[in-house]
Amino acid sequence: MTYQVHESDLDAIALGGAFLGTGGGGDPYIGKLMARQAIAKHGPVTVISGDDIADDALCVPVFMMGAPTVMLEKLPSGDEVLKALSELEAFLGKKADALICVEAGGLNSTIPFMVAAVTGLPLIDGDGMGRAFPELQMVSFTIHGIAASPMVVADDKGNSALMSTVSNLWTERLARVVAVQMGGAALVAAFPMTGAQMKTALLHGTMTTIRDIGNTILSERKASRHPGAALRAMTGGMHLFTGRVVDVERATTGGFARGKLTLRGIDAFAGQDFLIHFQNEFLLAETATCEAVCMTPDLICALDADLGLPVTTEQMRYGITVEFSALPADPQWHTPAGLALAGPRYFGYEHEFRPFDTGAKPEAAGITQPNSHASHNSKSTG
Amino acid sequence: MTYQVHESDLDAIALGGAFLGTGGGGDPYIGKLMARQAIAKHGPVTVISGDDIADDALCVPVFMMGAPTVMLEKLPSGDEVLKALSELEAFLGKKADALICVEAGGLNSTIPFMVAAVTGLPLIDGDGMGRAFPELQMVSFTIHGIAASPMVVADDKGNSALMSTVSNLWTERLARVVAVQMGGAALVAAFPMTGAQMKTALLHGTMTTIRDIGNTILSERKASRHPGAALRAMTGGMHLFTGRVVDVERATTGGFARGKLTLRGIDAFAGQDFLIHFQNEFLLAETATCEAVCMTPDLICALDADLGLPVTTEQMRYGITVEFSALPADPQWHTPAGLALAGPRYFGYEHEFRPFDTGAKPEAAGITQPNSHASHNSKSTG
Repeated sequence: MTYQVHESDLDAIALGGAFLGTGGGGDPYIGKLMARQAIAKHGPVTVISGDDIADDALCVPVFMMGAPTVMLEKLPSGDEVLKALSELEAFLGKKADALICVEAGGLNSTIPFMVAAVTGLPLIDGDGMGRAFPELQMVSFTIHGIAASPMVVADDKGNSALMSTVSNLWTERLARVVAVQMGGAALVAAFPMTGAQMKTALLHGTMTTIRDIGNTILSERKASRHPGAALRAMTGGMHLFTGRVVDVERATTGGFARGKLTLRGIDAFAGQDFLIHFQNEFLLAETATCEAVCMTPDLICALDADLGLPVTTEQMRYGITVEFSALPADPQWHTPAGLALAGPRYFGYEHEFRPFDTGAKPEAAGITQPNSHASHNSKSTG
Repeated sequence: MTYQVHESDLDAIALGGAFLGTGGGGDPYIGKLMARQAIAKHGPVTVISGDDIADDALCVPVFMMGAPTVMLEKLPSGDEVLKALSELEAFLGKKADALICVEAGGLNSTIPFMVAAVTGLPLIDGDGMGRAFPELQMVSFTIHGIAASPMVVADDKGNSALMSTVSNLWTERLARVVAVQMGGAALVAAFPMTGAQMKTALLHGTMTTIRDIGNTILSERKASRHPGAALRAMTGGMHLFTGRVVDVERATTGGFARGKLTLRGIDAFAGQDFLIHFQNEFLLAETATCEAVCMTPDLICALDADLGLPVTTEQMRYGITVEFSALPADPQWHTPAGLALAGPRYFGYEHEFRPFDTGAKPEAAGITQPNSHASHNSKSTG
């Protein structure tokens, strides 16, 4: 299905991206402003189904990499990503035919709309994660053997680096230190692929999912309902817990925002403490006794319990009340190859992966699961 | 003047490179072995005067960058630098006509002989430093406005990065972190320039100087004389002091070998302590009361007081007796532009630059200067 994205659609897309972004990927608000400005100037963006792309088309993901802590303060001008794309095209000796979102979350689900508007290229309906992940090799493209390089990393000052690497993990390593040196964040064009490769490797339809999630958040809030329950119903998600942030540990190291939240359960969860570990994204939710209730690659999504709006790791602060939901990852992430790329062990967590709705679910970890979320709905704003 | 360099010339070139390397640039021994093997297989290397190169020729410096501590343990295979050169040529769409040594010291004064032998390209008689310096923007090419980029950095695993930067300092910053990530050292092709640019910017004749210095070391040692006095006579150098190493502080940080030597003066210098500060290269020689006796960009060259052989920072160890000489830097380094690039302030030292043979000379700093170096010559080996 092909459809147009107008300025008026960007609120929903930014909200949906923030929810699926599992706390990371940067605040989509900035990308939304960039996309809005570009669409106002150049016209709407065409979102096209991956199946409608020619097999020999050149499809290129464009994205920002770096610590969200930095992205909040160091806004891209938009020129960097266009430069990254055009340098990659020059190296390949071929113009891109379509753009791809590398992740369905955060800033990187809105920046490609800006690039699409400026270049006039269609944006393919899908992405490489079905969520956001912190490292660039953590994409379905890697699972399907598509190389991240040749890849161009560009900064706001006019510097760029074209990487050719022997593996996608090496691309991540080299690009990460370059991005840190460029000021903590950089714009990237990478994973150039044919239409045929894209059709096999893409997680299809996720741009539409983001928009639908965003529209649900908007309509539920308009109806004075907290959107948590509706979002879980449409995504196969589960309410993990609701709690008040009582501690935030945060450090920006090695080009990532890493840290841990401690939350004190409220309402049905009163008397229980929870921990959320993050590296850009929320990656592991545990009880105070370190029993996992949801872990990467499954999604840990946060909504402000009062406002019903997505909360990023950067927005977490003492006293905020947050409703955490678990959403199932795309089945590719549950394969051995997917877990090797983005499972809990890769990040150094002690847990063996279990999907949140089987062994790792709250009941199994001794958590009382409430029957409904009515108590929080009453607090939503309209 | 054009001449051939054969296997039998490499001992002298490696020794001269180690002396002018001012302690850094890596041990030329490894580069000597690589060059020897390549010359044995491909034939001798042509060293050509810069003036004999066509104005429109493409001249390319090739070199290794990284901490000498790492270079000692992580030997290049030789393929990395050829890959860096060929990727740069591919980007420029033009084959190199001649090679240049980026520095007249250490490993980087022998590796280009290997590349020249394998590719059959002539090596130009000259370099960009007239010594060794730790950072890649510290070349006469920068003073003359020649960009370091496009530049290719390559490693042993098959990874490479082509940099395009807005200044040579930015190239240093980005390439340094990439080299660290590649394992602490990487091979580079950079500063592509025309023959006309080379003629203006090159420090001419330094490859011949290196060879002559090496031959002097060899002949003096053969005559059972310590080569220090003869080397100072031929280079306008001055004996700074001779002392025994009583302390070595060394750390490999940020991609550099940084540290400080403490030496206890012997013979005419008995009763005095000296400090040598280094970042890959010896950059500052001070008395124990922190009065400078020689500072960058002037050269601080070390010879084993007993053996008469050059000593690198990596070879400095407790108990070794070392004769330090000061040599004047090329006059370009004494200009404001040269001092901004590689003067003591750039490295964070408190001293205002003074040439060693004027304000900074040992007499001015209260050091007793011996009349001759005979006391050490008696200890040389034959």
